[in-house]
This record gives sequence, C-alpha cells and structure tokens, in this order.
Amino acid sequence: MAEVENGTGAEKAPAVAFTVLKPWLVVDAPKASDAVQFYKTAFGAEEVSRVMHPKRKAEHELPLVLSAELKLGSAIIVVSDLINDSSAPVKTAATGGVFCLETEDVESAVARAVTAGAAAEGEISEGDGASCSGRVGKVKDPYGNIWLICSPPKKCADVAA
Amino acid sequence: MAEVENGTGAEKAPAVAFTVLKPWLVVDAPKASDAVQFYKTAFGAEEVSRVMHPKRKAEHELPLVLSAELKLGSAIIVVSDLINDSSAPVKTAATGGVFCLETEDVESAVARAVTAGAAAEGEISEGDGASCSGRVGKVKDPYGNIWLICSPPKKCADVAA
Repeated sequence: MAEVENGTGAEKAPAVAFTVLKPWLVVDAPKASDAVQFYKTAFGAEEVSRVMHPKRKAEHELPLVLSAELKLGSAIIVVSDLINDSSAPVKTAATGGVFCLETEDVESAVARAVTAGAAAEGEISEGDGASCSGRVGKVKDPYGNIWLICSPPKKCADVAA
Repeated sequence: MAEVENGTGAEKAPAVAFTVLKPWLVVDAPKASDAVQFYKTAFGAEEVSRVMHPKRKAEHELPLVLSAELKLGSAIIVVSDLINDSSAPVKTAATGGVFCLETEDVESAVARAVTAGAAAEGEISEGDGASCSGRVGKVKDPYGNIWLICSPPKKCADVAA
C-alpha cells in the first residue's frame, strides 16, 4: 500500500491474477448441514469436501460446519455455519445473495427446487435480453438467497424496447 | 410438481443438469457502472458484455445497466442496477454477498483492492484449514459485498484444534 498514493494508483499497480472465485453462503448456525442437503436435493449439487468446526459448542445440538464445498454447475460454492469466534472470516450471516443458474430445462429445475423447499417467486417467463434471457424462473431458498434459473443465453444484440 | 407429493419427492425427481452458475450483484441504481469500474480496478475483472436498460428513466442522470458480465477468476459475475419495473428479475439490492477469491499474491491483491476503494477488514492472517486457508485477507467493497482473498488451498486433512 505504501507504493500507491491515491485512488487512481490501483490502475497502475501490478495486475493480480485470480484463479478461482467461490460464492460463500454463510447461514445461521447450525443450519449449514441442512443447507448443504437442500442444495443437493434442490439443485443436484455435489459435495466436494466438508470441514467441521473443531470445537463443538455446548449450546449447539449439532456440530458446526466450518466449510462445505459443493460443485454446482461450473462453480464451487462454499456453505458455512456462522461461527462467532476469532477464527471466523465472516461475522454476519450473508443472506440475500442472487445467483443465476443455467439449464436447458427451466421448468423441471424450478419444480425440483420448489419440491425441495424453495419458494417460487412469480411465474416462469421470457427474459429480457440481459444475462438471464430465454426462459427465466425464480426461487428463494430457505436461507434467503435468490436463484434465477434460466435457459442458456442466445446470442442477441437486440434489447427489446 | 403434481408428480411429487412431499419434500422427499425431489430426490426421486429427474436430475437437472446445470451448466453455469453466475453470482449476480445487484446494486442501487445508478451505481452499477461505478461498480463495474471498481471490480476492474480492484480485481482486474474483464468486462465481457454490457446491456443497458432500454428505457432511461428521467429521474436518473445516468443510463441504467441491465446487466454487465465480468470475468473474474474462474467465474462470470453479473452486475446490475436495481431497476424497479416489471422487467426486473430482482427487486431489492443484494448486498452482503461473500466471495472467496484465490490468488498466489494475497498481499498485493488486498493492497490493490484497498487502493481502489475497498475497506480492509482486519489484518492478513493464516487461515483455519477450511476453504479459505493459507493466507487470508478480507475487504469490503463499496457496494456491501465481502471478498475473502486467499492463497490457493493446500491439501490438508488436519484441522487445528
């Protein structure tokens, strides 16, 4: 930080290469296990790894999840219990995230998510030419996150007025 | 939905294949352009596409961003202005998302993000054996999202007690 003097300096700073971006869903403890099961059932997510919190707190009935990694589409998402101790990188439950999931079968995907416990929001409709175009359904998961379930985008330069 | 009778039915429903997951960051209008510039400057994100809202609202000084897609690490993130009309798939600004970004050079990445306008939260420290292990820094962007900037995970089965 000593080498840059003001806000415009960042553009001259050496580029930093990022390899991976993982959305991290932090849920109120001890709901992470439930959330992992929900994402498996609702979206067919595959659990890649799970690390439990080493100190099980007496007041918690269930051991807490430090991080569970799930493969979902092209991404890895991380699901954690909110743990209020010094080891926690995040101190508040992060709810209200929005994620776009692409699939060829929007209707089945929405139906499956709703059956697993998500709330459908509105009807499946035609998108608007932006990222989520084609058919678009929307569900809210039990942990506060919104999932837009869309058919893959078609190449279109037009935006309907 | 007619074919399944209760919450456990989803596990028997046909699997739905998702191809892509895109985190979608919805910011208060008209800040999306600023946010895109911030993610470029702070994280070296590359803009892939941008679709503007066809109806520029009189009360807004700037045209609104329907969706801008940015390549960031292994992912595509979408940045949109919050647009309160019937075409909007999301009706509330989504802030408070948490994202893990992996890089070999955590210090430079955090410094660059802070120079670009992110707020550093705490010191860079050693992670805890979970998803964000190795060195971990944390910044909050001007739009309310938290970015954990971590060195790539080493294979470790141990979790320090």
